[in-house]
Amino acid sequence: MEIQKIIKENQLGLLFQQGSFGLEKESQRVHADGSVVTTAHPKVFGNRSYHPYIQTDFAESQLELITPPNNKIEDTFRWLSAIHEVVQRSLPEDEYVFPFSMPAGLPPEDKIKVAQLDDPEDVAYREYLVKVYGKNKQMVSGIHYNFQLAPALVDSLFKLQTQYENPVDFQNDLYLKMAKNFLRYQWILVYLLAATPTVEANYFQHGTPLAQGQYVRSLRSSQYGYVNDPEIKVSFDSVQQYVETLEYWVATGKLIAEKEFYSNVRLRGAKKARDLLKNGIRYLEFRLFDLNPFEIYGMSLSDAKFIHYFALLMIWMDEIADQEDVELGKQRLARVAFEHPLAQTEFRIEGEQVLTVMLSMLDDIDAPQEITDIVLQKLAQFDDPSLTIGGRLLVALSAHGGYQQFGAQLAQQYKASACERFYALSAFDNMELSTQALLFDLIQRGLNVEILDENDQFLAVKFKDHLEYVKNGNMTAKDSYISPLIMENKVVTKKVLQKAGFNVPQSVEFTSLEEAVANYPLFEKRAVVIKPKSTNYGLGITIFQQGVQDRADFAKAVEIAFREDKEIMVEDYLVGTEYRFFVLGEQTLAVLLRVPANVIGDGVHSVAELVALKNDHPLRGDGSRTPLKKIALGDIEQLQLKEQGLSVDSVPAQGQLVQLRANSNISTGGDSIDMTDEMHESYKALAVGITKAMGAAVCGVDLIIPDLKAPAQASLSSWGVIEANFNPMMMMHIFPYAGKSRRLTQNVIDMLFPELSLA
Amino acid sequence: MEIQKIIKENQLGLLFQQGSFGLEKESQRVHADGSVVTTAHPKVFGNRSYHPYIQTDFAESQLELITPPNNKIEDTFRWLSAIHEVVQRSLPEDEYVFPFSMPAGLPPEDKIKVAQLDDPEDVAYREYLVKVYGKNKQMVSGIHYNFQLAPALVDSLFKLQTQYENPVDFQNDLYLKMAKNFLRYQWILVYLLAATPTVEANYFQHGTPLAQGQYVRSLRSSQYGYVNDPEIKVSFDSVQQYVETLEYWVATGKLIAEKEFYSNVRLRGAKKARDLLKNGIRYLEFRLFDLNPFEIYGMSLSDAKFIHYFALLMIWMDEIADQEDVELGKQRLARVAFEHPLAQTEFRIEGEQVLTVMLSMLDDIDAPQEITDIVLQKLAQFDDPSLTIGGRLLVALSAHGGYQQFGAQLAQQYKASACERFYALSAFDNMELSTQALLFDLIQRGLNVEILDENDQFLAVKFKDHLEYVKNGNMTAKDSYISPLIMENKVVTKKVLQKAGFNVPQSVEFTSLEEAVANYPLFEKRAVVIKPKSTNYGLGITIFQQGVQDRADFAKAVEIAFREDKEIMVEDYLVGTEYRFFVLGEQTLAVLLRVPANVIGDGVHSVAELVALKNDHPLRGDGSRTPLKKIALGDIEQLQLKEQGLSVDSVPAQGQLVQLRANSNISTGGDSIDMTDEMHESYKALAVGITKAMGAAVCGVDLIIPDLKAPAQASLSSWGVIEANFNPMMMMHIFPYAGKSRRLTQNVIDMLFPELSLA
Repeated sequence: MEIQKIIKENQLGLLFQQGSFGLEKESQRVHADGSVVTTAHPKVFGNRSYHPYIQTDFAESQLELITPPNNKIEDTFRWLSAIHEVVQRSLPEDEYVFPFSMPAGLPPEDKIKVAQLDDPEDVAYREYLVKVYGKNKQMVSGIHYNFQLAPALVDSLFKLQTQYENPVDFQNDLYLKMAKNFLRYQWILVYLLAATPTVEANYFQHGTPLAQGQYVRSLRSSQYGYVNDPEIKVSFDSVQQYVETLEYWVATGKLIAEKEFYSNVRLRGAKKARDLLKNGIRYLEFRLFDLNPFEIYGMSLSDAKFIHYFALLMIWMDEIADQEDVELGKQRLARVAFEHPLAQTEFRIEGEQVLTVMLSMLDDIDAPQEITDIVLQKLAQFDDPSLTIGGRLLVALSAHGGYQQFGAQLAQQYKASACERFYALSAFDNMELSTQALLFDLIQRGLNVEILDENDQFLAVKFKDHLEYVKNGNMTAKDSYISPLIMENKVVTKKVLQKAGFNVPQSVEFTSLEEAVANYPLFEKRAVVIKPKSTNYGLGITIFQQGVQDRADFAKAVEIAFREDKEIMVEDYLVGTEYRFFVLGEQTLAVLLRVPANVIGDGVHSVAELVALKNDHPLRGDGSRTPLKKIALGDIEQLQLKEQGLSVDSVPAQGQLVQLRANSNISTGGDSIDMTDEMHESYKALAVGITKAMGAAVCGVDLIIPDLKAPAQASLSSWGVIEANFNPMMMMHIFPYAGKSRRLTQNVIDMLFPELSLA
Repeated sequence: MEIQKIIKENQLGLLFQQGSFGLEKESQRVHADGSVVTTAHPKVFGNRSYHPYIQTDFAESQLELITPPNNKIEDTFRWLSAIHEVVQRSLPEDEYVFPFSMPAGLPPEDKIKVAQLDDPEDVAYREYLVKVYGKNKQMVSGIHYNFQLAPALVDSLFKLQTQYENPVDFQNDLYLKMAKNFLRYQWILVYLLAATPTVEANYFQHGTPLAQGQYVRSLRSSQYGYVNDPEIKVSFDSVQQYVETLEYWVATGKLIAEKEFYSNVRLRGAKKARDLLKNGIRYLEFRLFDLNPFEIYGMSLSDAKFIHYFALLMIWMDEIADQEDVELGKQRLARVAFEHPLAQTEFRIEGEQVLTVMLSMLDDIDAPQEITDIVLQKLAQFDDPSLTIGGRLLVALSAHGGYQQFGAQLAQQYKASACERFYALSAFDNMELSTQALLFDLIQRGLNVEILDENDQFLAVKFKDHLEYVKNGNMTAKDSYISPLIMENKVVTKKVLQKAGFNVPQSVEFTSLEEAVANYPLFEKRAVVIKPKSTNYGLGITIFQQGVQDRADFAKAVEIAFREDKEIMVEDYLVGTEYRFFVLGEQTLAVLLRVPANVIGDGVHSVAELVALKNDHPLRGDGSRTPLKKIALGDIEQLQLKEQGLSVDSVPAQGQLVQLRANSNISTGGDSIDMTDEMHESYKALAVGITKAMGAAVCGVDLIIPDLKAPAQASLSSWGVIEANFNPMMMMHIFPYAGKSRRLTQNVIDMLFPELSLA
C-alpha cells in the first residue's frame, strides 16, 4: 500500500486533502453556578427520535450537537456555530452549556435522569450502563470528529495501486491503516488538546485516584474516563477480524452491544459491524477529544484542521501499526493522560518526530501555508507544555477560582455571546435575516436542511421522505406559480380583487381638462385624490377627504393637477392608517403598523441626542444585518424637521412627537408595531379572503383602515386594499420595535410539514 | 324626463357616450357555390350547451357568433374578428360562411336540420317554429346589437332628475324611451344599412312576392322576413304593460314562448319578462341589422358607431314615442323595406331631420369629429341612395353574376383572408403568438376568456365556476411557485437533478494551473471540455470528446485555457445532439430539433437566392409576428459562409448543406423540426422524470443525446440534461418548419380544465 508514492507520483496532493467532516459535541446543561441541571431535555428541541442536530447522549441533561457532514471543515464549524446558537438561545433563562468535558456540581446519582428516549431499547441500554459504570462516568462529554476521504481519491488510489483487486477491500484497508496508526499515535492529540485535568471528588464511585492538588492531562482519556474494561481487545487487522472479535465480546456478554465498544476510533459505514463486510468502511469516527473550554464551540477551527492533517498523516506514513503497536499506543495514551499538564511528556521525541514527518507531508502534498503554521505551533508545544490547552487551562483554573467556578463563568459568557445578536445566526449572516430565522427554527425543530445556494437564500428541507424547497424564507411549493405573477401586476391584481368583491381604490386617467370635468359625476361625493400622473414633490395634488361635493372645486383641482403634467389621475382616496397583514393559509398571523422614523421629546435632550438614544436599540443597525434600521439625520430628515420648525439641535418638549420622515418604511428608520391583537377580526378575515382571491398561500396584504376597532363595512370609507405582496417580509413581525413578536418562520414550517405536529 | 337638459347642464356629455357593446352575428355555413350545407355543426366547436362564443341559431347550419360585452365598441369588433377567424379556420376545407342575410341554394326543407341541441326544450321550440313559419324563413341571418348605457350615467341622471323616486323605475323608463323612439325611427337604419334586396324563389312557401327583376331594401325586415304575425302587439309603455301584453300572447298560444316575440328591440336583463319588474331593464338588444356583405365581419366599425349614437339620440330627443308612434314606425319600416334600393325613400325628409338633430346632439355632447363625419356621410345617402349598402349591393350583384354567385365569391375571399396568417389572431396580434394560439383554442372550445392585461399576456379563463389564470401561454396555478425559482437558478437546478439521479454534466472551476492539474484524477477517462471561465470567440477551449487519457494532455489544455483567463472550468463534455422536450404533467408532448439557419444547394441558385426562396416560407417573418424568422445575410452569416469557403454569390451544388449560423436559435433563422415520433420513449420518460424532480407541471427539458433511437443508459455518454426551462416556448412545436404540428395549447387547456373532457 504505497499511498505516499502513488500520491506523489500522480500529483494527487490536492485531492488527498479533500474530504468530508462532521462533528458531534456533547455537553452538560448546567445552572448558573455550573452545577448539572436535573430538568428535562427542553421540549422546544422537538422529538429526539428523529432530530438530526440536537440530541441527548447518556443523560437527560447531556446535550449532543451534531453537524451534518460538509466537504469543508469551515462549513462544519458554521453548522456547529448555528446549532450552538440555537441551543443557547432556546435554553431556559437560567440554564447554560458547560464548557468542560468533566462535569461539576453533579447531583446525587438518583437525581441524574438517563435520557428519556422514545425507543425502549435506547433507555434499557442506558440503564445497563448505569449498572456497569455508574451514572457519573456517563456524564463526561467530548467532541467526536468524523472524517471521510474524498471518494474520488479512494477511486484514484485504487486504480493506481496494484495490490488489491477489489475496491472495497482496498478502501477498508486504507481506513484500517488510518485507524490503527491513529490508535498508535493518539497520545499526541491528547498531549496537545486534552483539557480534563481534574474533576470533583464525588465523581468517583470509589474515591478519587488523584492526590490532593494533582492535575493530569486528560482524566477523560484515562482509565477513570469513559473507557471499556482493559480486557476487551478488538482487532483492527482486518474488517473480518474486527467484526469477529467485536461480536465475540458481545456474545460473551462482556459488552451488552457493539456500541458499548468505546474505542477512540470507530469504523463507520454500517449500523451493525457485520454489515461493514458488505458495505465497506465509509468513514472513521475519532472520539478522544476533550472539550476545549477556551473555545465557544469546544474546539478551535485550527485544531480541527490539525486533526484532519493528522488523520491524513496516518495513511501517508509507510508503516502500518499492528495489534501490538495499537496496544502500545493505548498504553502511551494512558500514561500521557495522567501526566501533569505543565510537565513535558515522556514521549516528547516521538511526538516531535511524528510532527516533523507531518511537515514534510504537507510539503509533498502542497498543503496551504496555514496548515504548516499550525503544525509548527503544535511542534513548539512539545518544548513548552504551558502552550498546550491543558497547560493554559491549569493556569486559568487557579486564576478564576477553580474548575466549577471558571466553567460557570465561561458558560455564562458564551451564552451571552451567543445571544447577543439574537435575531441572526452568526455563521450564516451573509444570508437574509428571514432565512436565518427560518434556519434557526428548522435546526431547533430538527428538520434536515441543506443550503442549496446561500446567495439565493435557497434551502432544501427534508423530514423523513418529504422534501420541500424554500427560497427567501417563504417562497415555497405551497404557493402556485400564478399568484406572484398576479401580484406582480398591479392592474391584474386590482381586476382580480375587484371581481372578487373587495374594496379596491379605483383610478381613472385623463389627458384633457374637459374630459376630466365631464366625468365629474363619476366622482361626486367620493373621497378622491386628484394628482398629476408623475408626481413631483407632491405638487399639484388635491385631496377631497370628505368626498367632492362641488363640480367647481373638482374642476379647480383638475386644473391645478394639469399645471404639473399632461396627464392626471383621479383616484379613490382612502382615509385611514395603513396596516400590513401577514396571511398564511387560512389565518392572518400578524398585523403590523409601520410608523415613519420619529423620536419623542423629553424636554431635556436635543433631536440629535434623542435619535442617538433611539439608535442604541439592539434591533437597530445599518445595512441589512439588523431587523430595524438606525435613523439617519440626512437631508431628508433635516427638511422634515424644518417643516416642523425644528432643527437637530432643538430640544422638543416632554412627549412631543418629532417626525423625521414622511414615509413609513422600516428601511429608513421607521418603527414596526405589532397590532395583531388590537385589530378587529373582520379585517383579518378580509386579508385571508384577499389572499385566497390571489390564489396565494402566503401573502402580505396592505389595508387602509380608519378605525381598527370597528368591524369592516362594505364601503371604501371603512377599508380598502392597496396592495397584495408575495414573499412578504417576516423580520418586522418577528422582531417588531414594539408589541408582541410573531414567529412566522414557525408557521412556514408548519405549513410545509403539517405531519410534524403529529410526529 | 329632461335628459338632454340634464346632460347639457351637468356636462355629462362624455359619460353619456360611454357604454357597453355586444354583437351576435348569425350566418349560414355554405358550400363553395354558396348553397347551404346539410352537415352537422362542426364537433371542433365543442358543446353548445355552454359555448359562449360559437352557437347555432335555428338550423344546424346556422352559426351564431357571440362577442362578450366590451366598454369599447372597438374591442367588441376585435372579439368578433377573433371568433370569426377561429370559425373560418375550423370549418371543413369545403365549407364557408355566407356573407348575406338571406340564404341561397337552400336544400329541400326536409334536408334542413334544426340545431341539434342538448336541451330537448330547445329542439322542441325549433320544431314548433318549423310548423308555424316553415324552415326557410328561419334560415335568415342578421346581426344583433346589444347596448348598455354606462351605469354611472344612469346613476348620475337619476340623481339629477326630480321626477322619479325609484332608480329602477327611472332606468326602465330611460331604456323604454330608447326602445320606443328606436322603433319609431328604425326605418332610418334599414334605409341606410339594409342588404337583403332579393332571395331565390324557393325561399317562399307560397311563391315569391317579388315581381320579376324587383329588388327591395330589406326582405328580412319586411313581412316576408323573420317577423311575427302583425296581430301581435306588445306594449312598450311601461315594463308592467310590456310584461302583461307579452304574457297575454303566450297565454293565448299565439306565441309559444316569450322568445318568439321577434321585436326589433328586445328589453334585456332577465330570463323571463316578468323578472324585469324586479331587476329592471339592463340593456337593449337591437335586432334589425342585415349582414353587410361588403364587410368581412358583417358590419363595419363605423356603422356600429353610428348605431351607438343613433341609440343615444333616441334618449336625447325630448319626445317619447307612444304606442301609436311605434306602430307608425313599424309601418314606415315595412314600406322602406320594400322600396327599391336605388330609389329615394318616401320618408327622406324625416330621415334628414332626425340626422340633423343627431348632428346637433353630437355637438352638444362634444362627440369626436369622427362620429360627425360618419353622420354627415349617412345624411348624404338620403340624397343619393346608391351610396347606401343596399344601393351598392345592387350594383355589385349585377356585376358579379347574381346573389348566390357573388355571395359564394365573397365567402371564399373572406375565408382565404381569415386563414392567411393562420398562426395568429389578427385582432390580438399585439400579444405573443403563443397567447394568440391559446386564445384561439379557448374560443374554439368555448371557455370564457377575459384578457386581464394584453401587454402582460395575462388571461382569466372560466368554465362554469372554475376560474384559472394563464400568463404567457402556459404559466398557471398548476405549477408551484418554487419550480421556476429552482429552474431559474442553474446551480440549484444541477444539485436537485443530480440528487434525483439524473445525468448532469458537472463543472469544476480552478484558479491555478497546479490546482487544476492536481485534480486530474477527477477527470481521467471522462469526456470534458476545458475552457476559460469567460469565453471569448471560443479561444482557449480544448475538448476531449473521447475522454482525457493522459495527464500531460490535460495539463496542456489547462495551460491553454489559463492563457485567456484567470479562472478556468473543466466541464463534462456531452457528445450528441440537443433536443428540446416539451413536458406537460406525465407526458412528453413534443420533441424538437433546432437546426442552425441553413440552405441546401440546388446547383442553380446562389446562396442569396436560396435564402430569399427559403424566407418566402409563410411561417417566416421579421420580428415576433411569425413562428419562424427570416434568415438574415448580415456579418455573422457572411463570416459563417466564409469559413465554408463560400460567399452570398456562390452557387452551392445540388444537395449541399450551407450553414449560415453556428447557433441553432429559431430567432436567428434556425429550422424547427419535430422529432416526437422519432425519439426513443426512454428519453421522453426521462424528461418527464426531470420535470417531476423540478416539481413542475410544464417544463422544457434540453437533453443532449447522441443516438435518439437507442434506449437511454445511466451514463453521460448516453444522454445528459443541460437545462430545464419554465414557461417553455410553444410556437416552435405548434408550427415547426418540418414535421408534425403539436397543438400544445390544447394540452394546456386540458391540464387546466380536466372536467372539459367530461363536459
